[in-house]
Amino acid sequence: MTGLTLINGRTDDRIESRDRGLAYGHGVFETILMVDGQLTFLDWHLERLLEGCRRLHIPDTHLSSLLRTDLAALPATEAGVVKIIVTAGSGGRGYAAPQPCEPLRVIQCSELPHWPDAPAQNGVRLRWCQTRLAQQPQLAGIKHLNRLEQVLARAEWQDPAIREGLVLDTAGHVIEGTMSNLFWISGNILHTPALNACGVAGILRRWVLTVAPTLGLATRLGQYRPDALDTADELFICNSLAGIWPAVQLEQRAFEIGPHTRALQALLNKEYELC
Amino acid sequence: MTGLTLINGRTDDRIESRDRGLAYGHGVFETILMVDGQLTFLDWHLERLLEGCRRLHIPDTHLSSLLRTDLAALPATEAGVVKIIVTAGSGGRGYAAPQPCEPLRVIQCSELPHWPDAPAQNGVRLRWCQTRLAQQPQLAGIKHLNRLEQVLARAEWQDPAIREGLVLDTAGHVIEGTMSNLFWISGNILHTPALNACGVAGILRRWVLTVAPTLGLATRLGQYRPDALDTADELFICNSLAGIWPAVQLEQRAFEIGPHTRALQALLNKEYELC
Repeated sequence: MTGLTLINGRTDDRIESRDRGLAYGHGVFETILMVDGQLTFLDWHLERLLEGCRRLHIPDTHLSSLLRTDLAALPATEAGVVKIIVTAGSGGRGYAAPQPCEPLRVIQCSELPHWPDAPAQNGVRLRWCQTRLAQQPQLAGIKHLNRLEQVLARAEWQDPAIREGLVLDTAGHVIEGTMSNLFWISGNILHTPALNACGVAGILRRWVLTVAPTLGLATRLGQYRPDALDTADELFICNSLAGIWPAVQLEQRAFEIGPHTRALQALLNKEYELC
Repeated sequence: MTGLTLINGRTDDRIESRDRGLAYGHGVFETILMVDGQLTFLDWHLERLLEGCRRLHIPDTHLSSLLRTDLAALPATEAGVVKIIVTAGSGGRGYAAPQPCEPLRVIQCSELPHWPDAPAQNGVRLRWCQTRLAQQPQLAGIKHLNRLEQVLARAEWQDPAIREGLVLDTAGHVIEGTMSNLFWISGNILHTPALNACGVAGILRRWVLTVAPTLGLATRLGQYRPDALDTADELFICNSLAGIWPAVQLEQRAFEIGPHTRALQALLNKEYELC
């Protein structure tokens, strides 16, 4: 499956250079984990993708069924990554979308990243990034193709021992990691930043918020300053590929990998077995 | 020349779907007017493009000379549009740029847009957009590929009689048009928004600011609220393709096309003749 790419359902690996996805980042994407031949959380990924299309005025008629047909044609493998990109398609020069707007579908298959240091088990080191996320409610939450802020934040460090950088918004609120969402636990309260002004509302974030109450955790979404993390007993990041990675260090502060984080990981593993 | 596309100097019109320009908008672009076979303001366009590459960590070694070689190979035509896109090239999944990073060069040739209503001569109608520009100093000024805000702002109206929409930033400052920069004249002072927090520092904007003093105009860059335009005697927008378009109406308010705007247009026409 690795390396396979479908463009509008056909095996191909190139797109028109006049596509609005390249010209303006006029599109959305999803990165989906395949486990035992099953695409995990597929319904939620497609739901977010369609919500992104609506927000960006990309027509979504038949899109979901076309994507499901594309995905059904992929050879099932034990584990891998399937990335979906949907753009507003080719158009003339100029910001106004062409009429009719014919979306482009790209499906890219890759191997699962290799993490020899077993970050889910051993925990990860985090840092604070200098790059701030701009506040743009019109684009908040969705996974669109305008990702320069993440590129700039991720370019701030090369040390492979640091697995993720946390970013604030321009108003100084904690938002997320460059490629992950952030949670912390104080007592029996699970905190995560609200994403009304910026940030990507991750699929694993949604899952964590959904299951946390079953573990006796109250969930709280809010606007937090960095010092809100001072009282955290446990801290973790999550995304669709990595799952849940406990933090063992954020800058100079060490964290223990706590029981709630381990319980969430165990629950996630069970979820994947059920896929 | 119309429709011709060069990818890394070769005639082709497709790019790899795993290019970081599509994945993240990790790249920059320039839209250049060709007049009498000459690319207008080419040095300034390349200067801004290289500045954009530096800001986005795209290596620019030899880039300028490679682009000049690409451009020299284009068939000269009387009038047309040459768009240059430079991306960070193909890379694996993940926000960290691949090492080495091998930039991709795309050159797209198009016909000059047709404006039957002669907007430069007759003036244009403008509106205010609801879409706000997020404040992101790290990306301000350069012409990068993350242009969803412009797409959203331009999608707000369909009336072809309205030529441009003006946008504020999220703090309520006037910034620019969706595809143009904005100037207004009160007395003998030429005003335009400072672009430290957002906006694209246009090539025509630079030219206007450079030549205005020779016409007896003092220039003032600042943070302006929309009511700053209430005292304007003349208002115009500009970009590299359109040149200078005087405003004759902004929402309910009418404007006269004034002598300073006409003088700037005459000077620009002379500039193009000298190309």
